[in-house]
Amino acid sequence: MGEIMRLSRYFMPTLRENPAEAQIVSHRLMLRAGMIRQSSAGIYSWLPLGFRVLKKIENIVREEQDAAGCQELLMPTIQPADLWRESGRYDDYGKEMLRITDRHDRDMLFGPTNEELITDIFRNSVKSYRDLPRLLYHIQWKFRDEVRPRFGIMRGREFLMKDSYSFDLDYEGARRAYNKMFVAYLRTFARMGLKAIPMAADTGPIGGDLSHEFIILADTGESEVFCHADYLDFDPMMSGVDYEDDLQPVVDEWTRLYAATDEMHDPVAFAEQVPEDKALHTRGIEVGHIFYFGAKYSEAMGATVQQADGTEVPVEMGSYGIGVSRLVGAIIEASHDDAGIIWPEAVAPFRVGLINLKVDDSATRETCERLYAELSAKGMDVLYDDTDVRAGVKFATSELIGTPWQLVVGPRGVASGLVELKSRDGDVNEEISIDAAVTRVSG
Amino acid sequence: MGEIMRLSRYFMPTLRENPAEAQIVSHRLMLRAGMIRQSSAGIYSWLPLGFRVLKKIENIVREEQDAAGCQELLMPTIQPADLWRESGRYDDYGKEMLRITDRHDRDMLFGPTNEELITDIFRNSVKSYRDLPRLLYHIQWKFRDEVRPRFGIMRGREFLMKDSYSFDLDYEGARRAYNKMFVAYLRTFARMGLKAIPMAADTGPIGGDLSHEFIILADTGESEVFCHADYLDFDPMMSGVDYEDDLQPVVDEWTRLYAATDEMHDPVAFAEQVPEDKALHTRGIEVGHIFYFGAKYSEAMGATVQQADGTEVPVEMGSYGIGVSRLVGAIIEASHDDAGIIWPEAVAPFRVGLINLKVDDSATRETCERLYAELSAKGMDVLYDDTDVRAGVKFATSELIGTPWQLVVGPRGVASGLVELKSRDGDVNEEISIDAAVTRVSG
Repeated sequence: MGEIMRLSRYFMPTLRENPAEAQIVSHRLMLRAGMIRQSSAGIYSWLPLGFRVLKKIENIVREEQDAAGCQELLMPTIQPADLWRESGRYDDYGKEMLRITDRHDRDMLFGPTNEELITDIFRNSVKSYRDLPRLLYHIQWKFRDEVRPRFGIMRGREFLMKDSYSFDLDYEGARRAYNKMFVAYLRTFARMGLKAIPMAADTGPIGGDLSHEFIILADTGESEVFCHADYLDFDPMMSGVDYEDDLQPVVDEWTRLYAATDEMHDPVAFAEQVPEDKALHTRGIEVGHIFYFGAKYSEAMGATVQQADGTEVPVEMGSYGIGVSRLVGAIIEASHDDAGIIWPEAVAPFRVGLINLKVDDSATRETCERLYAELSAKGMDVLYDDTDVRAGVKFATSELIGTPWQLVVGPRGVASGLVELKSRDGDVNEEISIDAAVTRVSG
Repeated sequence: MGEIMRLSRYFMPTLRENPAEAQIVSHRLMLRAGMIRQSSAGIYSWLPLGFRVLKKIENIVREEQDAAGCQELLMPTIQPADLWRESGRYDDYGKEMLRITDRHDRDMLFGPTNEELITDIFRNSVKSYRDLPRLLYHIQWKFRDEVRPRFGIMRGREFLMKDSYSFDLDYEGARRAYNKMFVAYLRTFARMGLKAIPMAADTGPIGGDLSHEFIILADTGESEVFCHADYLDFDPMMSGVDYEDDLQPVVDEWTRLYAATDEMHDPVAFAEQVPEDKALHTRGIEVGHIFYFGAKYSEAMGATVQQADGTEVPVEMGSYGIGVSRLVGAIIEASHDDAGIIWPEAVAPFRVGLINLKVDDSATRETCERLYAELSAKGMDVLYDDTDVRAGVKFATSELIGTPWQLVVGPRGVASGLVELKSRDGDVNEEISIDAAVTRVSG
């Protein structure tokens, strides 16, 4: 059964006017569509419509992590400062870390990230090379006390992230874990209808080539990006990928062509490696980051394992993040028009917006109820606009919230057994029989 | 497809010894089974096995809230102090509230509960009686800075709760909302294999009879309870409950007999109302609380709605909590033996523990792989113990983590086409053909 909702009963407080505080389109549309409400600077409540999208994104992330053999756990939001003193980051982190003193005057903090905590869990539980490799993840709310939170949930203070952490005996193992996450990320973003391009990122003192940001292209993106246009034609859904295989060829293929954010951009290399008609210079949004950091934390925190020969080595680690709440905004930045959001089907809050043009007409109402029941039985999520307002208002709301399919039911059509079917992307706009409509939108 | 896991690859760090810090059985068993690890006093990480149980409980709670017409949203963990100043609770709350100052010296707090925030959302969005009733909920981590956190996740500092809030025009509407939650709670706990008995709770200055705690019976429970033994035979799964019906008769039926915690206990009334052979005096654990509080917050915070006649009234509210993380411990307190946990099927981390008694025997291994694949195809969650340890260790682990079904595969049985099937509750223990085993545990 799909989830169904009558708009007359749904808590979706839309706004007619553009909120003055919203500088970017995703923030504006999320407020207008009643997806979020700010509770204080950079901190938001997710109202039912926004929450549905957030959950759909979270579930896609989860399914692809599970498929890659990553095991889910959940670390708390509040961490002890002492762990961060061990790694040396407690003093380094600066004012973005939300520092807290509890009633017993112990120093705590709201986790901005989890390397220390996962390393602590690992060192208390795993002692032998026989228990490696390990690939663990969690999806949890984090806090970064941004000096100027802005752009809605795109650069908020409290935000939802998926973090994975890999534990391996040696560099080769760490590289295999890295490659698994690389491929899982390609698939994750593709399932959301996004083209995410992996771009080499700064590895800092760790060095090497095992750090990539996953960037989706959007004119309104926060960073400049430079890449080979052929990436746009790559297929990230390598059907039937086997995570036990050697994935290096896939990673090589996806890192073969030039792709860089402004931070790492090398104009000379770009000009040399990319023919002029393939040189893409646009803007992008970071939605994921994968990073190998070796023994940085395991050495500082004593997370060692015994090797086959009895000697101890610090475990090799990597971390792999996806901005789950940020993706909601990023998808809107990449997919909207003047009227509102255009959701990719996989993350749409509802697949079908069912619009009753005349709620006091019994034949129209009966047809709507029938469509509502049949679509639900086919597993479609339907938002049924049964409110008593003008047709124009209904269309505007429907376009604003961006359901992929719109089914418009009015007395004239019903009399001849027809409804109007529109796709939000504008490709479909036709009169169609009621039965055909059900088949069409559930296909 | 069910979820399947090979124990050799599963991050489940069990402990052989009873941890000294654990005073109660659920805490002890959760640590020993590798379900949780403490990160600081009263704050825990949920390891994969514990996380699976937590998610199953959360999903049952969610499904029953949705079925009752409650709509899910998500409020943040960090709240502005100003909202709590409006309600007057900022000063009242005392040291259990985790108070935080952000980088701009604004007073914030980690939400111990959400009445203020949901009232703020409501007053900013709903203005008219036509938009009532509303029934909203969220499932979020909360923090209470307990002076002496203890009993593991049963009285931790960071804990997961489901909170619902109802908004109605008048007392009658509020009572309907209250009754919906009353019935939803009966169903929720029953689906987890629990007998939860609603007991009248203190209504304080609000008065009236609309406050109930839902208590499950367990010898190790935190509070004394006194009730009529007939409650144990009541059936909470009123099949086909319609939440649009008048639910008052159900509530009346469930509050007809005597039931009280020590706080509300009246020995005279107990003796008068309950025949001696029906007088149950035992211990219990609170897993839910529903509470009507009228205009307490809406008045203080100006959450009013316009009535049909144009006048404004403060909205009538109630709140309804379930301790989601606490339930994990409560279920263990109610269902365990000396060897470990006995999970009710609906919340078990895995339904089947598949035990390979001789991993270096190819026929045994093949039978296990076949069972593993067939059970998974039937949607069963299976934990396959493919580790190379003694049979005794495998049995002990299996009983400790408490999967409802145990399938034991050894070379002797395999030669004659048989496996051993045991239920964790001890009711079943037989040799059975391999095909029959699949049918039996997936039934």
